Amino acid sequence: MSHVQKTRTTVEIYGRTYTIVGDADKHHVRLVASMVDDKMKEIYQANKSLDTTRLAVLTAVNTMHDYLKLQADYEELLKKIEEKEEH
Amino acid sequence: MSHVQKTRTTVEIYGRTYTIVGDADKHHVRLVASMVDDKMKEIYQANKSLDTTRLAVLTAVNTMHDYLKLQADYEELLKKIEEKEEH
Repeated sequence: MSHVQKTRTTVEIYGRTYTIVGDADKHHVRLVASMVDDKMKEIYQANKSLDTTRLAVLTAVNTMHDYLKLQADYEELLKKIEEKEEH
Repeated sequence: MSHVQKTRTTVEIYGRTYTIVGDADKHHVRLVASMVDDKMKEIYQANKSLDTTRLAVLTAVNTMHDYLKLQADYEELLKKIEEKEEH
């Protein structure tokens, strides 16, 4: 059971309003929302025929790709530290 | 100028077909697509009144949040290594 206070933050992403409920502070939620908004606009600039759903899905795909890349970097860094500690 | 061969991978995400063009290999693109598809279904289960655009945007928000969290972890790990090397 968690007793962490949930925050409700209203943000605008690509012209629509979203209320995000979670543990993150409002400042962080607004930052995340503006990054998603920026990425959607960037993908739209590259392909103006995409509808909003496709834009949002491709934004998610893009971000997931970045996430996995960073995760691989993180694991590599961890491995390096472990190797250093062994020697 | 890049001479990397671009791959074209067709994937299905939440019932729609996407052709993803990029440097990543097809296996990786399919993995990313299935992770986005899973996340959309997960968010749908939590709130069945959301339309597909909202689902996709919230999936992007969710993934971006995870990305920033991992980025902070990565930077912290880097800092630790630097501190170790100094002492």
